[in-house]
Amino acid sequence: MRFDVVGLGVSTVDLIFTVDQLPGSEMVQRAGECVIAGGGPVATAMVTLARLGAATAMLDSIGSDFFGSFIRSEFAAEGVDTGGLVVAPGRTSSKASILVRKEDGARAITFSPGDAPELTPGGVRADIIRASKILHLNGRHWDACLHAARLAKEAGVLVSFDGGAHRYDPQHRSILPQVDICIAAHNYAAAFAGTEDVAQAAKALLEAGPRIVVVTQGAAGSRVFSHEGEAFHQQAYRVDRVVDTTGAGDAYHGAFLYGLARGFALEESARFASAVAALNTRALGGRAALPTLVEVETMLQQ
Amino acid sequence: MRFDVVGLGVSTVDLIFTVDQLPGSEMVQRAGECVIAGGGPVATAMVTLARLGAATAMLDSIGSDFFGSFIRSEFAAEGVDTGGLVVAPGRTSSKASILVRKEDGARAITFSPGDAPELTPGGVRADIIRASKILHLNGRHWDACLHAARLAKEAGVLVSFDGGAHRYDPQHRSILPQVDICIAAHNYAAAFAGTEDVAQAAKALLEAGPRIVVVTQGAAGSRVFSHEGEAFHQQAYRVDRVVDTTGAGDAYHGAFLYGLARGFALEESARFASAVAALNTRALGGRAALPTLVEVETMLQQ
Ligand SMILES: Nc1ncnc2c1ncn2[C@@H]1O[C@H](COP(=O)(O)OP(=O)(O)OP(=O)(O)O)[C@@H](O)[C@H]1O
Ligand SMILES: Nc1ncnc2c1ncn2[C@@H]1O[C@H](COP(=O)(O)OP(=O)(O)OP(=O)(O)O)[C@@H](O)[C@H]1O
Repeated sequence: MRFDVVGLGVSTVDLIFTVDQLPGSEMVQRAGECVIAGGGPVATAMVTLARLGAATAMLDSIGSDFFGSFIRSEFAAEGVDTGGLVVAPGRTSSKASILVRKEDGARAITFSPGDAPELTPGGVRADIIRASKILHLNGRHWDACLHAARLAKEAGVLVSFDGGAHRYDPQHRSILPQVDICIAAHNYAAAFAGTEDVAQAAKALLEAGPRIVVVTQGAAGSRVFSHEGEAFHQQAYRVDRVVDTTGAGDAYHGAFLYGLARGFALEESARFASAVAALNTRALGGRAALPTLVEVETMLQQ
Repeated sequence: MRFDVVGLGVSTVDLIFTVDQLPGSEMVQRAGECVIAGGGPVATAMVTLARLGAATAMLDSIGSDFFGSFIRSEFAAEGVDTGGLVVAPGRTSSKASILVRKEDGARAITFSPGDAPELTPGGVRADIIRASKILHLNGRHWDACLHAARLAKEAGVLVSFDGGAHRYDPQHRSILPQVDICIAAHNYAAAFAGTEDVAQAAKALLEAGPRIVVVTQGAAGSRVFSHEGEAFHQQAYRVDRVVDTTGAGDAYHGAFLYGLARGFALEESARFASAVAALNTRALGGRAALPTLVEVETMLQQ
């Protein structure tokens, strides 16, 4: 088995409700819509890739309870290889309740991290990494991350890092020399570099290791920088009705890596990623509206 | 197979989080504790009975999704017979997110009813009802309720009705002539009778059919009335630390029926039910702290 991309991160389960009011005090309300959906940045990026037709696998440590089973079975249904999931008996996986106010999409997120132990370096399936073109990480399961990045480098596998909004941690600096592609939320890049200026922050990230740096800025699009000195802005695609932007960034990551794995030029990868991220905002939940390749191509031809 | 009690009602799944704040506006917060638990008044009463060692079964129409599977497997794990659960393919079961403020236990409940169809009279397992001593209902799956109550009467099976707080519906009047035991929340009894006076409301309920009427009043205990003219107050038991009163009423119902099925006198049943309900407030979720028979007996001997 060969994989385009293997992800290493934390998978979660989100229970998402649309509501009239965010409940500031005791109340009982009936939700409009309700969906249960797998989440987690790396996990959603893998599902994005699988939906597009890429071969993917996920490395994670999950609980043996209902949430763990849900995570595993959703991956299996999406075609993400689950051979690298380590199941911790008697433990529960990470889950969240997400209330989305209908009026304006404001979200109240309550999460519970679960108690499955971190994935250890010994739990990382080296054979899966060696069988992949790209390894995608976001710093969760830190020791396993470092180990996996080393394995990837030794095997000539590209390393991709997701710098998530509000997830900057100074220890991430030590992995960046191993990273080839870093796609970061604006907030992450700013925290890393100590400046809101996107070009300066990207320069600092490039100096730390990666040869490609992308900074995403929500509806304002994304900016791509590389060692080769290319730099361009990719605008966000418009969709008729944005229902939920959860997972837009994760979809962008997955789709960008799809482009790289398929040998697209940077501009083409960014445009493609932007279309996929926009399409993913059409429905409630981080994954419900992830497009197939045909849907993206249709959008890009318009 | 013989059953002590068979329940007919709607089973739900609750995802319960303890939180510092109820989220009146956009926010991300980490929960203290988190539990996933089956709920629904009749369903929790059946689990109460099973925990005590009684033979029980549940009649319901559930979804084929994650929530439906959770419901079924939790019943199976508790020893509640699932042969009377009708599974609706492609449908989802009822679920809720419950945020419980740590400081004072104030609850923000967001629920989504699911789209499994009602249980129909044709879907009711007559053989299970005929094999039981008591049928327990709360008016959900209305047509199936009426049908089940008729079957029970014909077979000499006692009929028990749960009058839940905020669940009074005038159509319930038509089933009361078939009901032997009605245990109602104070709020239900008041809505039924148009008076806050417990004795008057109980009298009105007794006149509508049941030979035993119990009105529960939370921490203020419960009052028992019967055609034989007995009437007494049962005080609530105290527990050292009340964590969550969800399901106290359901536990009371289940335990009261346990007493009746075992031939306890009314006073003994009420005392027993009161102990079980109090014990059930010790942990988060409607079922987590349901006691075994040994635990209740230990409490009653103190
Ligand atoms: N409202 C939107 N409409 C269209 N495209 C969007 C929208 N929001 C985000 N996107 C696309 O998704 C990309 C990533 O979004 P963003 O910068 O918000 O990522 P993020 O902070 O990692 O998001 P998340 O954590 O919610 O996944 C943007 O560069 C843009 O292309
Ligand atoms: N805080 C408490 N401490 C001890 N016992 C309690 C407490 N709250 C309820 N109980 C017991 O449970 C019984 C039923 O409670 P209550 O009247 O609140 O039922 P309910 O409204 O049907 O509750 P729920 O819908 O939450 O299950 C009471 O009569 C009492 O015996």
